[in-house]
Amino acid sequence: MDVLVPFAAGEPKTRLADVLEPDERAAFARAMLLDVCAAVDSAGGAPTVLSTADIDCPFPVIEDDRQLTDAVNAHLDAPMAVVMADLALVTPEALRRLFETDADVAFAPGLGGGTNAFCTRKQAFTVDYHGASIRDHRRIAKDIGATTATVDSFRLAVDIDEPRDIVELLLHGDETSHARKWVVEAGFEVARTDGRVVADR
Amino acid sequence: MDVLVPFAAGEPKTRLADVLEPDERAAFARAMLLDVCAAVDSAGGAPTVLSTADIDCPFPVIEDDRQLTDAVNAHLDAPMAVVMADLALVTPEALRRLFETDADVAFAPGLGGGTNAFCTRKQAFTVDYHGASIRDHRRIAKDIGATTATVDSFRLAVDIDEPRDIVELLLHGDETSHARKWVVEAGFEVARTDGRVVADR
Repeated sequence: MDVLVPFAAGEPKTRLADVLEPDERAAFARAMLLDVCAAVDSAGGAPTVLSTADIDCPFPVIEDDRQLTDAVNAHLDAPMAVVMADLALVTPEALRRLFETDADVAFAPGLGGGTNAFCTRKQAFTVDYHGASIRDHRRIAKDIGATTATVDSFRLAVDIDEPRDIVELLLHGDETSHARKWVVEAGFEVARTDGRVVADR
Repeated sequence: MDVLVPFAAGEPKTRLADVLEPDERAAFARAMLLDVCAAVDSAGGAPTVLSTADIDCPFPVIEDDRQLTDAVNAHLDAPMAVVMADLALVTPEALRRLFETDADVAFAPGLGGGTNAFCTRKQAFTVDYHGASIRDHRRIAKDIGATTATVDSFRLAVDIDEPRDIVELLLHGDETSHARKWVVEAGFEVARTDGRVVADR
């Protein structure tokens, strides 16, 4: 399975600005990218990073500086999967579940309406990443007559976008992954609150 | 599979106080409880509500006014599963995945370190729901020499605890469920933000 991994090389992870400096956000984003590509590779996929700028990377890179939606649509083929670069909890097992459905288009929804990963076997499928994209993508699939499936995965649902997501990486991330090692070395720890725990530094 | 469904009948869902009045929180909590019990039943389980107070309910109820940890430990048996009453996205399929592992103890982690559901086949397993309970529960299982499994499920990971969770119910909930119908009738809609979408009223 060919797998595109879109990556914002310019100023990544701006919603983590409250807890990480710009150079830290860049390093952390790169750690997650390497983990995601390695998981794709272990799951039997062939990852290609779709980067907004030139990056030094051990995996194949296509450079395209357009917005996410335009860049993905320009390079989308079928069969192909698209997996976001910030899925720091991803495992080969979770990706295999996505790659192996027999639907024309299989989705892995993200928290808050995102489409964290999908796999299409239908050439006519296109993306639109604005707003609650999972809803738009289901509609687009329906409009082209594609059968759909949804992969029920916590590991694919959690993208590391906001400070509160970091605790999920501390609690559930692979201890040998670049991203989890990075947040541990950066000083993050599980901190208790009245409700859900969070990561403090 | 016998399944305990703990339910706080007194003042449920206090962390939703910013968006729901007390009587609304009670009605919404009840709607979710009925959906969870129905899903357990459809998955081949036998649900028993473990309620802090007497409630009118079509499923069997055990009343125990102790704190969650003490109440669950007092009624925990093996084999048995414990499924939280606020898993409004739960489906019979997701529960079957939990019930059918061959581990001594199988966990379904919740967002923010919670233990949204588990299934034990080991009499010695006990719970401790304070803080990042998933970590404590993994430790307890290890201490008693139990084999463990983790069910990778978004539907079991999302409990409806905080206002931002309501959008997950709008986007992914079964349209015929009591809980989703309740939030739609209460006027919640998907609203766009800079990042993840949320539910507005």
